[in-house]
Parts: sequence; structure tokens; C-alpha cells
Amino acid sequence: MPEQLFSYQQLFDFTDSVLQKIGCSNADADKATRVLLSADLRGIDSHGVARLSGYVRLWEVKRVNTIPSIKTIHETPSTAVVDGDSGLGLVVAPHAMQIAIDKAKQVGTGWVSVQNSNHFGIAGYHAMMALEHDMIGIALTNASPLVAPTYSVERLLGTNPICVAIPAGEEPAFVGDMATTTAANGKLEILQRKSGIAPVGWIQNKDGDISTDPFELKAGGALLPLGSDKEHGSHKGYILGSIVDIFSAVLSGANYGPWVPPFPAYVPMPDEQPGKGIGHFFGAMRIDAFRPAEEFKKHMDKWIKRFRSAKTIKSQAKVLIPGDPEREMEKERMKNGIPLLKPVVEDLKFLGEKFELIFPENLQSAI
Amino acid sequence: MPEQLFSYQQLFDFTDSVLQKIGCSNADADKATRVLLSADLRGIDSHGVARLSGYVRLWEVKRVNTIPSIKTIHETPSTAVVDGDSGLGLVVAPHAMQIAIDKAKQVGTGWVSVQNSNHFGIAGYHAMMALEHDMIGIALTNASPLVAPTYSVERLLGTNPICVAIPAGEEPAFVGDMATTTAANGKLEILQRKSGIAPVGWIQNKDGDISTDPFELKAGGALLPLGSDKEHGSHKGYILGSIVDIFSAVLSGANYGPWVPPFPAYVPMPDEQPGKGIGHFFGAMRIDAFRPAEEFKKHMDKWIKRFRSAKTIKSQAKVLIPGDPEREMEKERMKNGIPLLKPVVEDLKFLGEKFELIFPENLQSAI
Repeated sequence: MPEQLFSYQQLFDFTDSVLQKIGCSNADADKATRVLLSADLRGIDSHGVARLSGYVRLWEVKRVNTIPSIKTIHETPSTAVVDGDSGLGLVVAPHAMQIAIDKAKQVGTGWVSVQNSNHFGIAGYHAMMALEHDMIGIALTNASPLVAPTYSVERLLGTNPICVAIPAGEEPAFVGDMATTTAANGKLEILQRKSGIAPVGWIQNKDGDISTDPFELKAGGALLPLGSDKEHGSHKGYILGSIVDIFSAVLSGANYGPWVPPFPAYVPMPDEQPGKGIGHFFGAMRIDAFRPAEEFKKHMDKWIKRFRSAKTIKSQAKVLIPGDPEREMEKERMKNGIPLLKPVVEDLKFLGEKFELIFPENLQSAI
Repeated sequence: MPEQLFSYQQLFDFTDSVLQKIGCSNADADKATRVLLSADLRGIDSHGVARLSGYVRLWEVKRVNTIPSIKTIHETPSTAVVDGDSGLGLVVAPHAMQIAIDKAKQVGTGWVSVQNSNHFGIAGYHAMMALEHDMIGIALTNASPLVAPTYSVERLLGTNPICVAIPAGEEPAFVGDMATTTAANGKLEILQRKSGIAPVGWIQNKDGDISTDPFELKAGGALLPLGSDKEHGSHKGYILGSIVDIFSAVLSGANYGPWVPPFPAYVPMPDEQPGKGIGHFFGAMRIDAFRPAEEFKKHMDKWIKRFRSAKTIKSQAKVLIPGDPEREMEKERMKNGIPLLKPVVEDLKFLGEKFELIFPENLQSAI
């Protein structure tokens, strides 16, 4: 499918303007744009500007409040619960992560569970906020139900990602950012655009049978938890997705399981709301709450070098460290531009017309 | 393979006596026995009394110190690093988990990384210590390298388990206890005894090719991270195993990656020791550091009931909640006895002779 290239700055300015048009303050628009575009830079295209019109539609149906009053509703020295006041997750999440970091400065670690929020972009952005403070950062979020637990035909969990970011010394940080499913929904979307066949083990149909049709979710099918089937440990992916759901939502008072509100504004809300909005969970651990940061980083470098230099299977050049592919992509796209698919460009142009904003000329087309 | 049945109390008394014979205090022997036998009760037979002679052999070669002076060598209000002084992990781990619980009482959460320890039995025992305090418990440990990261032919990680235990109200607790590999090593051992065939996706041979031979690890092969191959998310299992390794050992100053000491005393120690012993990581989060415990438990009950009553795929009776199978096994074995395989019984009888202890008569034989 043809793609068009835009510079980071072009997409930043446009996104920032759209968010201001829907009522965000300059500071919030700036913060949210930074989070959203980090997905495009890092190659997680499904979570970047491709979602901008989705956020706008949620604002239109009054499910997103662009002037939220974000509040800490409960706290202890190492914990807090934040009410996001239906704000953009892109704004609520960095606010909550900052609280976790501040608490870690005081008592060694900080843990913040968030209710009444919306989709927060990529988990990686928030977890990585900890790195510059010589802290380990953790970010989790629940999401609308697309995943069937082992043995279930019902979709009861989201793709519920986990990100853990760990600082190193000379080496770049370890950034493990993963959906708790075998394949992220974005990978299915790619196959849908190509009309491709999904590998066995990614999805099941509405009866719980094996399917390779990337459109299966539209017919009542489900994504499978990491592990794919019981014999290959799908109950472990189910455990992980459940932990993310419980930490993000049962701890905070957000909606959980099948009751998490859907991202697309046109999908009806669940019949019941046991909590408020969607939930996130953030953690920050100060390295020197355990051992001197320099000592830790020296050992992280040794860990990373040893893994990176491992003997590989024949067809592969090297063993990757979690975060390597995204970091390389970020460098490349910051330099050469961010490719957008035609439907995404059309969608952004439509937003431009709606808000009387000029959508930028692409750098070059048809890669 | 024929099995013999023993009562919990029979095995408890015998194990307790053996541990006292190798120098443990009464209190430590009692504590360690409780941890070890929790594995047999919960059906994780590879981690119970089957390992008792292994611990004895580690003591014989002076790799286990049965009169350790366990020390907190660094701490903040919410964190601690514990030096296990080469003690039995079965003793060091509950000590460290108790520190996490005590810190959570004070500041909401407690996080303890442990160096200089040994194998700690099942993660579930330690995480579940938090439950009676209305806390969420977390237990991680690294282990000797049997697992190849995605694209590696070298074994650089252990099966590095994660357990998260979450209290509920009327419903039993959620206890997710899982190796970060597709299949735990204990499952391979079962296939070895049966001379069975391993499913594709559990192991690779020394060149990184697919293998179904359960003896492959003895020929330089490796267990695969949860996900099995790249297409099915093995890089995610690799991320999880790495996080466990780093939290347990790089944070604490234990050995990590390929340098984790092996459990079998006859396997030579790694060429290098970047830290001390093996490492663990424990966490405790007080529920009411987030929201009132009764409110949380009411929602956990709702979560559990919804998942347990989900519509199932045709061949399955119900969707399980993590912890269900182990809890049912525990009830059954506490009532009817714990079955041991003949080689395990022989091994225990040998220990009995060595220490002049009478090994009990089995309740009945040949199940």
C-alpha cells in the first residue's frame, strides 16, 4: 500500500493544533502530541497519529474531557490512586507516572493506579519517563475486550500491554514493551489491509476454533493470549493480561474485564459500568534504593553485552535486546520522516478540513 | 510409573528431620519444610521433596549454608536488599518476603531484592504470604540457564518464574504462578520418564532447530521462552524472563544470565561470578494503600465470577481462574495423601539411611 512521508515536526505541529482545537490547553496538547507521536517514531503505527481522529470522535460524543481536573483521590507514601476525570490518557498517564517518580524520590518506589482515563498511547513512553531519573519504569493499561482467556469463547480482556524500562550505562536502556497477546491487534490490522492470512495461533473464531482470517474479530472471534493454546502456555498469557487488568482497574476503581469502554466511539458502551473509564498502572523504582546506580548500570551493560553477543541460530544476524528495534526505528524516522498509509493521510486531511487547519505537504510519496 | 502415597504429615516430619540433620535450626527446618511441601501439595512435584536430596548435596559441597546470617544490606522506606548468606532459598525467601510485607504496612508497598541465595521452592508460597495481610504478593526468582532468548542458540536465562497472588472476598484468591517459558522443565522431566515426545514449540536443539526430543537439553538444546517462536511472540517470553533476571539479580548483586549457579551439585559452577548466589525479588502491596480492602475484594469477586462463568469452547467444562487447579490439588492431597514416584521414594530412603532416620511406610502403593 502506498505511503507518504512526513517529518516529525510536520506531524507534531498538526496534531498539536488539532488537540488545541478540541479544547486542550497548550501544555496538554503539547504533552499529548509528544506521547502520540512517540508511537509513530518507534514504529508502533497503530498507536500514533492513526488514532488522532478516534480521539476527536470520543471528544465529540463527550467521552473525552479535554479540560480534565486530574486528582489524586487516595495516597500513601509509596502509592496513589489518580482520577483522570475522563481526560485523554495521553495527558492523564504522564501526570500519573510523574507522581510515581516523585514518590520514588521520597521513599524508594512509587506505584500509581489510575481510574477514569482513556487510551494512553504506547506504554513505552510512560515507562521510559523513569529512565532519566535513574529509575526503572513500569507502565500497564487495560483496554477494551478483544482477547479470550484460555477455554473461553467470550472476549474478556484487552491486549493489556506491559512495559518495563530499565536504565543501563554505556548501552541503551532495556525497554520491554509488549502486548500480553500472541499478536498485537496492530499486526492483524496490517494483515487486513493486505488481505493476508494470519498465522495459526493468533486468533480463534466465535466458537473457539482455530482461524487464520484476520477479519475474524469482526465476526465474534478473539485474539489469543500469549502462548496461543493451552499446550503452549496460553494460560500464562491469560494470567499476564489478568494481572494488568486487575492492577489497572480493580485497584483503581476503573472498569475491568468485559466492561472496559471501547476505543471506537461508534461501538456501544458495555451494558454495565462497575467502575469509571479505563485504568492504568504505573511504577517507578529508584535504582539506588537497591544499590548504587553506577554499579547497577555497569552490570546492566555486562548483561546487555552478553545477550547481544550470544551465538545465534543460523538464519539470524544477532540476538536483540528489548527496545533495540524501536530505538533504531526512532532514529531512522526522526532523520528521514514518518511514513503514513493513504487512509491515515486521508483521515488527517479530513480533520484538517474540519478544524480549518492546513495539513502539510508530504516530503515525498510512494515509497 | 508406579507411585506410592504418603500423608503430608509423614513427609513433613521426615523432611524436617533431614533438614535438622544438615544443621538447620528447628525453626528454619520447619519453615523450609513448609515451603518445600507446599509444592507437593499444589501438584508442582518437580519442586517438592523430589528436590530434598539436591539441597543436601549442595550442603555437602558447601554451596548451601544451613546456619546463615541473613542480613539487610541496604534499605529505604519501601525497599530492601537482602544478603541470604548462601542459605537455603526455602529459608531466605520467606524472610525477605516478610520484610516486603512489613514495609508495605508502613508505607503502602514493600520491594525486596535478594542476593546470595539458593533455589526457593515454588514462587507461589512466598507470594501467597501477602494474602492474609490483605496485600497483593509478588515473587520472582532467577535460575540456572536452560532457556535460549529468541534467535539465540545459547542458554542465557532460567525458567525464571513469576507469581502474583491477589486476595478476593468470598472467592478464593487469584494466584498466577508461571514459568516464563512455554513449558516448565518439570513437564519435560515427565516426558523423559515416559520416553514421550515433546510438542513442537517447547524446545530447540543445539543449532536452534525445532526438536521434540525431551532429552534435547542434555545434548546442548534449550527450553524456549513463552511464545515458542518469533511469530508467536517468543520475544515476549524473553522479555519476561529477562525482567525477572534483572529484578532478582542485577538489582540485588546476585549472579545473572548464563552465570547463575546450577542447582545440581555435580554440574560445574560457571566460569565467572559477577554476583553472589542466585537472586530473588519480592513485592507486597497493601490493598488499602489504593482503595478500601472490602471494596476491592467485592470487585475481585465480581471479576472472578464473570471469568469463571464465561461461555467455553465446546470441549471444555469451564474457564479456570489462575490458582484453581493448584488449590483443588492441595485439598485433595491433604486429604488423600501425596503420591511419589518410585525414584523419589528411593532417593528419600537413601537420605533416611544416610542420616539414620526411618522413612515412613507408604499409605498404600501402586496407584
